[in-house]
Amino acid sequence: MQKLTLFERFSRTFRESPSFSKMLIVLTIGGGGLVAYSEAQSYGVPITTKTSESNKKKKVVVLGTGWAATSFLKNLKDPSYDVQVISPRNYFAFTPLLPSVTCGTVESRSVVEPVRNIIRQKNVDMHYLEAECYKIDAENKKVHCRSNSNNNLNGEEEFVVDYDYLVISVGARSNTFNIPGVSENCHFLKEVEDAQKIRRTVIDCFERASLPNLSDEERKRILHFVIVGGGPTGVEFAAQLHDFVNEDVARLYPGVKDLVKITLLEATDHILSMFDKRITAFAEEKFQRNGIQLKTGSMVVGVSDKELSTKQAKSGEKDAMPYGMVVWSTGIGTRPVIMDFMKQIGQASRRVLATDEWLRVEGSDNIYALGDCATINQRKIMEDVSEIFRKADKDNSGTLTVKKFQEVSNDVCERYPQFKLYLKNHKMHTLGDLLKESKRDAVNESTEVNIEEFKSALTQVDSKMKFLPATAQVASQQGVYLAKCFNRMEQCEANPEGPLRIRGEGRHRFRPFRYKHLGQFAPLGGEQTAAQLPGDWVSIGHSSQWLWYSVYASKQVSWRTRMHVISDWTRRFIFGRDSSRI
Amino acid sequence: MQKLTLFERFSRTFRESPSFSKMLIVLTIGGGGLVAYSEAQSYGVPITTKTSESNKKKKVVVLGTGWAATSFLKNLKDPSYDVQVISPRNYFAFTPLLPSVTCGTVESRSVVEPVRNIIRQKNVDMHYLEAECYKIDAENKKVHCRSNSNNNLNGEEEFVVDYDYLVISVGARSNTFNIPGVSENCHFLKEVEDAQKIRRTVIDCFERASLPNLSDEERKRILHFVIVGGGPTGVEFAAQLHDFVNEDVARLYPGVKDLVKITLLEATDHILSMFDKRITAFAEEKFQRNGIQLKTGSMVVGVSDKELSTKQAKSGEKDAMPYGMVVWSTGIGTRPVIMDFMKQIGQASRRVLATDEWLRVEGSDNIYALGDCATINQRKIMEDVSEIFRKADKDNSGTLTVKKFQEVSNDVCERYPQFKLYLKNHKMHTLGDLLKESKRDAVNESTEVNIEEFKSALTQVDSKMKFLPATAQVASQQGVYLAKCFNRMEQCEANPEGPLRIRGEGRHRFRPFRYKHLGQFAPLGGEQTAAQLPGDWVSIGHSSQWLWYSVYASKQVSWRTRMHVISDWTRRFIFGRDSSRI
Repeated sequence: MQKLTLFERFSRTFRESPSFSKMLIVLTIGGGGLVAYSEAQSYGVPITTKTSESNKKKKVVVLGTGWAATSFLKNLKDPSYDVQVISPRNYFAFTPLLPSVTCGTVESRSVVEPVRNIIRQKNVDMHYLEAECYKIDAENKKVHCRSNSNNNLNGEEEFVVDYDYLVISVGARSNTFNIPGVSENCHFLKEVEDAQKIRRTVIDCFERASLPNLSDEERKRILHFVIVGGGPTGVEFAAQLHDFVNEDVARLYPGVKDLVKITLLEATDHILSMFDKRITAFAEEKFQRNGIQLKTGSMVVGVSDKELSTKQAKSGEKDAMPYGMVVWSTGIGTRPVIMDFMKQIGQASRRVLATDEWLRVEGSDNIYALGDCATINQRKIMEDVSEIFRKADKDNSGTLTVKKFQEVSNDVCERYPQFKLYLKNHKMHTLGDLLKESKRDAVNESTEVNIEEFKSALTQVDSKMKFLPATAQVASQQGVYLAKCFNRMEQCEANPEGPLRIRGEGRHRFRPFRYKHLGQFAPLGGEQTAAQLPGDWVSIGHSSQWLWYSVYASKQVSWRTRMHVISDWTRRFIFGRDSSRI
Repeated sequence: MQKLTLFERFSRTFRESPSFSKMLIVLTIGGGGLVAYSEAQSYGVPITTKTSESNKKKKVVVLGTGWAATSFLKNLKDPSYDVQVISPRNYFAFTPLLPSVTCGTVESRSVVEPVRNIIRQKNVDMHYLEAECYKIDAENKKVHCRSNSNNNLNGEEEFVVDYDYLVISVGARSNTFNIPGVSENCHFLKEVEDAQKIRRTVIDCFERASLPNLSDEERKRILHFVIVGGGPTGVEFAAQLHDFVNEDVARLYPGVKDLVKITLLEATDHILSMFDKRITAFAEEKFQRNGIQLKTGSMVVGVSDKELSTKQAKSGEKDAMPYGMVVWSTGIGTRPVIMDFMKQIGQASRRVLATDEWLRVEGSDNIYALGDCATINQRKIMEDVSEIFRKADKDNSGTLTVKKFQEVSNDVCERYPQFKLYLKNHKMHTLGDLLKESKRDAVNESTEVNIEEFKSALTQVDSKMKFLPATAQVASQQGVYLAKCFNRMEQCEANPEGPLRIRGEGRHRFRPFRYKHLGQFAPLGGEQTAAQLPGDWVSIGHSSQWLWYSVYASKQVSWRTRMHVISDWTRRFIFGRDSSRI
């Protein structure tokens, strides 16, 4: 079958078509489309396969097609790798828009991009396999995979792939905390399928509540939507649902609109606790004004098919709550394949897979883990304090001066970012300031401190260490970081650019990963969004909503999804949300 | 919760937003959007419920939300009815675009419109209930319904609705002809869900064929797509699949592209047999050129999970065909609820529910049936020939002249359209021409014929009677017709406008339903379509494709779906089809 490039396809159509039809298409492309076309033209470039060379290439296996994996793949430029991408999901999903998908503000297909589109335009050999890795064999450098669809391919669905480097970025699963009934009766909001299912269920609830022969009590139960978890996802879903009820249900289901109740349950004292207090307060106040019931300090202890049992954290008071739909959004847990892998490499006692600051899995060679499936186990400065002292004390005098420390100061700051953060938070500049605080007497550049004094000055430094949040932003930056390391692997092998090895000799190959927080949004419904930007700059309201639109449009992975998302927003403004139950 | 009209929503956003954001939305709306907006503004009209009056109103129950039901609902204008729409599907689907949905040329949500949107803007009381009618109780004028979703509403899911008039438009089901294995292993293409499932399966086949550790034979099997049935749907799906392979698979799955095989099986000697021979020949030739294997005269006798057994109609030769996916598109069958209803009203021996020419179900009062679930049982002229003679022979002379017949000629033509058609096909104008043919001697206006001569002249007239095809066009016209009858029910009761009652006295209330064929399309892929327009005008090629685009865009049920569909086409031109498996 003959292949047509996009340009041929286009021009052929234009050649053959009568002029009135040209008008149609020109009109429809409208604003932005032509720009997109010029970018998309590169789709026509023929794919060159280099199978003959690839035997000599280093084999990289990437597990997953989420934020971390995709940004790694997009940024990997060195053609000396042969990359296999393995994931049960053949697309990347723009997860921050999932709450918008649940009520039809944005369509599900607008937030996904096929991974084959992402890897196709590269000069690096990349292949995608639609399968799930069910076992990592670190000893033999193999991953065992299983094709996850089950239509007539019995018996041949398992295979093994070798690797030289393994990049684990399989994400996490929703955490039910083993509360009975949660996995059977609740909806989650991690995958596109989850969002589609929630959307169908929301419509279902309204349709069912509109049927005759139901008591008002039953109608109220069906239209009671409960969200468990007051994090950004739960809050955004509650806001979306409220907007949907407010803007669309009123015209589509006028008879049952007033029976709708939305309840948000949160185990701690406040929703959006990771945000600035001003945002939390604004959100809580706005929700109350909108009629969204907020139950903080309330823990779920069980879920049956029609009722949710809660317990007040403080009073211990128990309560039962009839519901129509529950969305469970309380946090993430480790996937079984990662748990199994952790046992193999001696991390069985940990809750989450740990990597070092270079995203290498602790206890295994050439395996990297990024995104929600791992956390960086930042080395504590107190663990290495003697070695740091020794490195700085070049003449082995047993004492250290501020001036002597100055020489290794940059390396220490880079290796132990908590050191720099601690100084910054306490408005200090050098070790001298820290010693001053600790010794409480005059310290100058040549004051000598012994190891005990050095230790006691640093005691508090590790206290402010924080794990990075499980967000798209972190995963994405980790992907970019790792790709850049891979791109300069040989070069940095020869000329290491990282900090001094404190325990060993020489320098680290690369600088450790450093997360740069670019801010975070919490859409609150009614075209209002709370934005917390770097430098504790807080903005709440309609202008932040427009900032949100701009940022989310610009962060789209392709021009295709960008056009989709923007036109979905536009259509929602014009026509409202679609309530078809498909 | 406060309701905002669309205008308020729009203007509020514009008031609050900084000017750069206005630009964004203005740009995105682009060509056509503003036109759509002006039309859509009527969405803001408040809904007035008239429950107090509705007790006196005639209760109309409409079963179904397909073409017939929707066009009935859209055209019903008389506010003296209280309408309940009952269907398990809360949306109308533009079914002619379903083959486009299977390969992602158009998105599934672009071809659907919520039925609540359709009935909302009317001044007639209309209510929608999402449920399936499982029993029609014609004797007690009730329908028994069941809610079809099963999420925690146990025990209360059945209800009964009374009617004064019942409009049955539940459509048909796919016909498997009881061939073993068909319902378990084949895909159908009647509903939006079917099209979505086919799309996922097509992508699945390509993903699975790309996995390692498969033999080439196995890969070929997985990529063997079989379509059973050479009607317009089967042919269009084959064409869509070929386009997808040709235009998108080549760039996305370069390794397996050459293993793809598409086979079209047809039991008769030619595909598209309902079209002009020129179209059939062109399609067969084009498919052969495109590498689509065409097996005519081939009947399927069984389907296992990996193989399809066929038998040649003529030679009786049997064959087994390994496949990856089968789409079954051979025709329609009667739904169980209709079969049960037919037993009640004495139509048990018939294959399809029969109505008279006014779409009233034969053997029951105030029940109408339209669309694919029924056929019009056109009265044969030979059944009534004595009564026609009597009506025309006003002076009871026992003989009839052409002149005397002239007086009832229009009524006869209207009541028995086959009479007019027969005259037209044989290039005749009056009964005189017919008598001339039959008597083979000179006939003038006053030639007298007796009843035997009259009968023998009419013998052949019924021979050309045809059932209407089960198409969207027929269903839609029937819906419009019935709505117009309902709108003028009282008026026509007083002043009947139909033809003379041949067997009874007076005139029929309404003119009988008359189908007006507006032409039919058969898209053949590669931006080529065959069009058969009234007057046997045949057009094949790229210009017909543009006609197809224009007609399908203009026939959309709402501005929303029109925008969706047009922008889907545009995006497909620019970016190709999306291969995400969702």
